[in-house]
Amino acid sequence: MGLKVVIVGAVAAGPKAACRLSRLLGDAEITMVDQDSLISYGGCGIPYFVSGDVADEKELRSTSFHMERNADYFQRAKGINVKTRTRALSINRKEKYVEVVNLDTQEKENLPYDRLMLAMGSEPFVLPIPGKDAEGVYTISDLHKGIEIKDLLAKGKIGKAVVIGGGAIGVEMAESFSDLWGVETSLIEFQKQLFPGIMDEVNSRIVEKSFRDHNVDVYLGEGAQEIIVKDGKAVGVRTANRTLEADIVVMAAGVRPRAQLALDAGLQVGPRGGITVNERMQTSDPNIFAAGDCVELNNLMTGKHMVLAMGSIANRSGRVAADNIAGIPSRFKGVVGSFVVKAFDVCAGAVGLSPFMAKMEGYDVGVAWFMASDRAHFYPERGALALSLVFDKKTRKVLGMQGAGPATDSLLARINAMATVLAAGDVSVDDVGNAELAYAPPFSSAIDPMNVAGYLAGNACDGKLKTVDFSDFLAWMEKPELHPDWQLVDVRSPNEVEPYTEKFGDRWPCLPYDYLRARYQELPKDKCLVIICSAGSRAFEVQVILAQLGYTNTLMVPGGVSLLERMGFDYLS
Amino acid sequence: MGLKVVIVGAVAAGPKAACRLSRLLGDAEITMVDQDSLISYGGCGIPYFVSGDVADEKELRSTSFHMERNADYFQRAKGINVKTRTRALSINRKEKYVEVVNLDTQEKENLPYDRLMLAMGSEPFVLPIPGKDAEGVYTISDLHKGIEIKDLLAKGKIGKAVVIGGGAIGVEMAESFSDLWGVETSLIEFQKQLFPGIMDEVNSRIVEKSFRDHNVDVYLGEGAQEIIVKDGKAVGVRTANRTLEADIVVMAAGVRPRAQLALDAGLQVGPRGGITVNERMQTSDPNIFAAGDCVELNNLMTGKHMVLAMGSIANRSGRVAADNIAGIPSRFKGVVGSFVVKAFDVCAGAVGLSPFMAKMEGYDVGVAWFMASDRAHFYPERGALALSLVFDKKTRKVLGMQGAGPATDSLLARINAMATVLAAGDVSVDDVGNAELAYAPPFSSAIDPMNVAGYLAGNACDGKLKTVDFSDFLAWMEKPELHPDWQLVDVRSPNEVEPYTEKFGDRWPCLPYDYLRARYQELPKDKCLVIICSAGSRAFEVQVILAQLGYTNTLMVPGGVSLLERMGFDYLS
Repeated sequence: MGLKVVIVGAVAAGPKAACRLSRLLGDAEITMVDQDSLISYGGCGIPYFVSGDVADEKELRSTSFHMERNADYFQRAKGINVKTRTRALSINRKEKYVEVVNLDTQEKENLPYDRLMLAMGSEPFVLPIPGKDAEGVYTISDLHKGIEIKDLLAKGKIGKAVVIGGGAIGVEMAESFSDLWGVETSLIEFQKQLFPGIMDEVNSRIVEKSFRDHNVDVYLGEGAQEIIVKDGKAVGVRTANRTLEADIVVMAAGVRPRAQLALDAGLQVGPRGGITVNERMQTSDPNIFAAGDCVELNNLMTGKHMVLAMGSIANRSGRVAADNIAGIPSRFKGVVGSFVVKAFDVCAGAVGLSPFMAKMEGYDVGVAWFMASDRAHFYPERGALALSLVFDKKTRKVLGMQGAGPATDSLLARINAMATVLAAGDVSVDDVGNAELAYAPPFSSAIDPMNVAGYLAGNACDGKLKTVDFSDFLAWMEKPELHPDWQLVDVRSPNEVEPYTEKFGDRWPCLPYDYLRARYQELPKDKCLVIICSAGSRAFEVQVILAQLGYTNTLMVPGGVSLLERMGFDYLS
Repeated sequence: MGLKVVIVGAVAAGPKAACRLSRLLGDAEITMVDQDSLISYGGCGIPYFVSGDVADEKELRSTSFHMERNADYFQRAKGINVKTRTRALSINRKEKYVEVVNLDTQEKENLPYDRLMLAMGSEPFVLPIPGKDAEGVYTISDLHKGIEIKDLLAKGKIGKAVVIGGGAIGVEMAESFSDLWGVETSLIEFQKQLFPGIMDEVNSRIVEKSFRDHNVDVYLGEGAQEIIVKDGKAVGVRTANRTLEADIVVMAAGVRPRAQLALDAGLQVGPRGGITVNERMQTSDPNIFAAGDCVELNNLMTGKHMVLAMGSIANRSGRVAADNIAGIPSRFKGVVGSFVVKAFDVCAGAVGLSPFMAKMEGYDVGVAWFMASDRAHFYPERGALALSLVFDKKTRKVLGMQGAGPATDSLLARINAMATVLAAGDVSVDDVGNAELAYAPPFSSAIDPMNVAGYLAGNACDGKLKTVDFSDFLAWMEKPELHPDWQLVDVRSPNEVEPYTEKFGDRWPCLPYDYLRARYQELPKDKCLVIICSAGSRAFEVQVILAQLGYTNTLMVPGGVSLLERMGFDYLS
């Protein structure tokens, strides 16, 4: 007689654990329940199904070899008993059974277990604002919602869409409305940037610009205060500053772990609302395991608990839970928060701490921003990659990295490289400078962009690199009187600088980088020299040489004119 | 009075060190000499200049902001004195000067130094065969050779080319002749596979197939025995098996460190012929540093010395040398051998030890091979990524990874992820299974291919995954009588298997994966069952289930039919 295992939840962590268990313990009796009729699907694929990239929702719930992963499949191929449309009502930990109800027949039954696994996932946070329950207001809580939205799109019923929330799901949904379907789309984010908390401001602005370039309106620092309803149907969204018309409103304001079942059963639940588990994915009841979006994970960068709803983590943590249920002492040590997202023709990614999070943790935060070609600068098909390396200035410890680049895998290649090594232990900015990323001209430059980020961070720690805050720079360009003691120096070639000097006169003079040693006396000694070039390398070098020549009151503009343009600031337009 | 620094060699490590030094020590007197007239160029870009991807050789020796890096530029912009066409003849360590000669005027002079840096690079190995010195026989020793070859191509003087050597340079040169110029190209490699030593056989075969698909003839296991010469000009290459006509012969049979100058000066030189340095890039003379192709590096995977000629490593090690010359205790700890190369529409890459190298080191070597989609299987624009994870079966320690994929950055994203973490310390197959690579459907699958590689390796260590050797499988398909006790079982869907059964009859039967539990009794118990599917996941699962059912004499075909096809074995053709 094999081990009786009940699994609650059949989307990602649940099915992964069930399949692994059936391979580990051939005689286990595995029962998996889910309140939904559709199971074992790639929830992260919903925006791509809505966008039309994925033609049929069945593809999201099929194996890579095109077999539909329904209850029948699990039974036939895996020997796993699946009960769909079946909700878990309560856990009797003493007698070890789960009370479930069939949502169609209302029949209840008790499922006995030797080991229980909780994989209920997360649910979207619904903003408590008027109109939230109106027809046409959606959260991306499950595949059904995706199917409904796509149906509306296909029938031409959506001319205008408002997406609330500038995180990954909001960004992906906004793209999916706009790109193929041509819906007039607005994206609202309560914080002052996209991907608040996760990304630095610079890289989030690159994504923002890509939305504006593709005619998606982005409103930052504006919360949705009310959904305007007419005849029971959402027709718009009101913020403090404006009212936006809408045929559909998508709320993508984050998710919350589904932990009520655990809480009711007296299991320990953490401050973030997720089920508390140890590295074996075991809850406070040794016979009950949990994995996926419903648990709190150890943030390897802070040592604190966090919730992180990702299909990838759900799968991996689910597998670890299965191992431990089967007696294999696998460990899930925690997460560093690897993240990547596509938005039209750009992608953005992050790992570890953003500057904001790093400050919250009390670090003496430095950020090395810059922009470089993602392949050898002489190789024809290259893209511009912006990277921000976040570090502690005191200890040179790397805290995180964010980036934005073309919608290829070039950013992924750097985020992944940082993710594995951050998870393995302390990394210094010098380690990043020496990281041995693979090199050939079609794939990188001899000094990889990530190495450059490490070099810059090291130079910043050594006091050699002093960068201007973007907000200061932007404010000064707007109102020069704010910093009357500043003077811009553009060290690009005269032909590059000419149009700027033409437009800005004395405010934007040129002193070509390669003539600095001959002409540096032209520079004023009583001003803070703000040095700019096309991508940052010349400006940095000029800063160093000027310091050697006694000009120490300098700041350079990281990423230069190119990065400013990528962020949407084209001073010639 | 600043530090006097002399640098010998001005291609990669030398200029990088010179520039870093001029930033660190504003008053240093830096003199860089090179025997060539062209300096500071991207040597790795030569095949892309020859191919036509890069239009002008000047691009290879320009900055990213299009400024030519000649002697004048170094003087003007960096304050570095460069003497081109100047060969270093000897080092007087006692009196601390380098004797140099101007190759144009034959004038000699002594350059005094406080610190000397050696960055002479490497030189191609010239096979000691008849005809090696004939006109039309090239090595890719410097940019001049690239310019000469491209000139011949542009003038239509090359109809047929033979490239000797199946390493990175040989592969890139063969592609560059064939792709745009349409030259009839043959690639000869003495060993039985491309990238011998560095890559596993499976992935090298994927590259090989891409060459054959693009009409490049590949001859493996055939050494060039003679270059056939007519009127002083190379007209062909003779191997043991054939004679190939050629208008040009490129020898790309590896490189050797240029260490004679160091050897003559009594500096320590290692068994691989490279200058011995410590982690500070300091030679056995504390005033003399060395970096780039001419030194031996610490192989972090073996603890042994190796030579590794890469522009990326030259730059990074050159910077570390400069730091130490300036009194900053930077360290270059060693290398894991990250490697990536493009060949037409595929790319191949490696890091750490290949199966061959791992066996040489005495490990109990396991290899987890497989093939997967490089993005979510439902995402439209995806490619097939083959990965081979090399590990020690006893300790579960990861020794290396090789792969082949589309000519995008998807393989790079996995090679880099492995490179940084391997360099940081011991990695287990379980760590790879849990590696937190960034996930979104346009960039990966929820379980990243690298995670799968880790899972498979773990299963192999646990004795759950038993794979057939490709050579055994190929031999058996060729001559079934070799393994009369074998029986193939294809567990794909009947419609997938039908054409195979039609062609091979009883030898290629179908037992659909999802009906295994119902029909397993059909399988013979007295044979070794060789289980195959499309990419390996079903075959593995069947192997596990069969073991639970008492069928333990099984092998599965890793990567399945897809991987066999990618290697050039299409059993339906």
